[in-house]
Amino acid sequence: MAYSVSIEDVTSAATRLEGVVKRTPVVSSEDINAIAGREVLLKCENLQHVGAFKFRGASNAVIRLGDAAESGVCTHSSGNHAQALALAAKLRRIPAYIVMPRSAPRVKVMGVRSHDAEITFCEPNLAARESTASEIIERTDSTLIHPYDNPDVIAGQGTASMELFEQAGALDAIVAPVGGGGLISGTSITTKSLHPDTRIFGAEPEGADDAARSLEAGEFIPQTEPDTICDGLLTSMGNHTWPIIRDHLEKIVRVSDEQVVEAMRLVLDNLGMIVEPSGAASLAAVLTPEFKSLEGIDRVGVILSGGNIDSLPF
Amino acid sequence: MAYSVSIEDVTSAATRLEGVVKRTPVVSSEDINAIAGREVLLKCENLQHVGAFKFRGASNAVIRLGDAAESGVCTHSSGNHAQALALAAKLRRIPAYIVMPRSAPRVKVMGVRSHDAEITFCEPNLAARESTASEIIERTDSTLIHPYDNPDVIAGQGTASMELFEQAGALDAIVAPVGGGGLISGTSITTKSLHPDTRIFGAEPEGADDAARSLEAGEFIPQTEPDTICDGLLTSMGNHTWPIIRDHLEKIVRVSDEQVVEAMRLVLDNLGMIVEPSGAASLAAVLTPEFKSLEGIDRVGVILSGGNIDSLPF
Repeated sequence: MAYSVSIEDVTSAATRLEGVVKRTPVVSSEDINAIAGREVLLKCENLQHVGAFKFRGASNAVIRLGDAAESGVCTHSSGNHAQALALAAKLRRIPAYIVMPRSAPRVKVMGVRSHDAEITFCEPNLAARESTASEIIERTDSTLIHPYDNPDVIAGQGTASMELFEQAGALDAIVAPVGGGGLISGTSITTKSLHPDTRIFGAEPEGADDAARSLEAGEFIPQTEPDTICDGLLTSMGNHTWPIIRDHLEKIVRVSDEQVVEAMRLVLDNLGMIVEPSGAASLAAVLTPEFKSLEGIDRVGVILSGGNIDSLPF
Repeated sequence: MAYSVSIEDVTSAATRLEGVVKRTPVVSSEDINAIAGREVLLKCENLQHVGAFKFRGASNAVIRLGDAAESGVCTHSSGNHAQALALAAKLRRIPAYIVMPRSAPRVKVMGVRSHDAEITFCEPNLAARESTASEIIERTDSTLIHPYDNPDVIAGQGTASMELFEQAGALDAIVAPVGGGGLISGTSITTKSLHPDTRIFGAEPEGADDAARSLEAGEFIPQTEPDTICDGLLTSMGNHTWPIIRDHLEKIVRVSDEQVVEAMRLVLDNLGMIVEPSGAASLAAVLTPEFKSLEGIDRVGVILSGGNIDSLPF
């Protein structure tokens, strides 16, 4: 089956993003390895520009726009894609119009503002976000850069796992969080092509487990009324991401908010780094009894997807 | 030969310091491993209370004083031992009198001040430090807690490597920086007893290489006119530390200030942590061509000894 994104798209994105995105560290902690019962290689996208992997996809999409970018770009996002697009637009000297839910973390709002983007606040639901963005696009003639359901965005996100394999070598499994599915889709395309034997897992909050339910049902189920501290993982999947997720993931592991907080604490105590709830979800998944009981996984790659929080939940 | 410190002293110190010192993380970076050509396990004492291993030795010494501590404690230190003793005294509710060279980094002076210690500044040389401390001790009846030439301090510093072995398991080699020799002495006693096959290395700045010259000559040579950015490694060894160093170290690797700065940059880029020059010296040693050419070392433990700096030198 043909997907919206190919490994060639990810490879091109990696070339396009040279010198633009940061090659983030891959670290490990002896104590976290001991708790996980295996070697855990953590890809630190919390140390990416704007503090999240989102800068990869946003930059790739903006650069790919070429002259069409002149009227600016627009998006709706709970925060990290908003910051990422704002910075990507600033670097290209084009306007960025950002729709954010009123509930977005302050640190993310301030990040968007610091990159000179124009912010419009709306109610924290997908319908309000999309309609507000549509009005702005009509008024400004800007181009929508969807936070995840955009092939250029997905290809850009795929570069994170491409780097991880370059840095860590072969992995028995790779785990990324699932919100709209941009990161896990890019991760899937990269992994399937470069390391077809590596098992691919998603991590999702119990309170926003649309992807897990969809994967189990074999059909797309949208997310309604999410309830989790993982503010970056609230949304439904998209038309481009769902088929990739459906066909590549072995399993989506559900994690409770308590497990996410525990993973955040472990990262701070054992690596001296602060990660946001959504960013810790993949490590939380690796530390569940469910994942720990899996056999044949000696080395697992985990994407710490972001590090922007207002305050520590502990 | 009997030394001033035994493994029993270190074991007792570890018990005494339970719940007092932080069990600091052991981390590694795939990219640093690749540069080093072997697995490098980094013990993050930069994340210890007061930002340096010195809190281990200072706490052990203060607790061991018992009732004799009532009149307070006094020391001379370029900074990290000063901060450590100030905090250890504060936790015991006794006065701390600290002699600091005028050249001490501001961040360390502020750290001492924040723990309510009384600071006296002096010229930046050992004679001035010792005479100023003597005057204060005569006046206050406080007890001198020497920054390194004190068996209780050395035993406390040994707990860092004891933890490292607990966390990382067997190591082919262990590397710690050498200033006055408290950390490397404690490291040597621990390593020789618990893992006698592990090779022990010191790291020293080219511009303050008294220990390297002493080890090569087989006799104690004091440090005069040190010249290095490693502000924590300027001093000569002591009567308690030199015999331990002489009999346990395979080699002291000299590092240039440029190599130290490069190691600091690697730690920041690949682990997201800031370490001070003295704290990066041991990693710098591991990355020298000299160390990289050593055979039979697959896993090396490296103590990142501290993280307190005024500004990044890059």
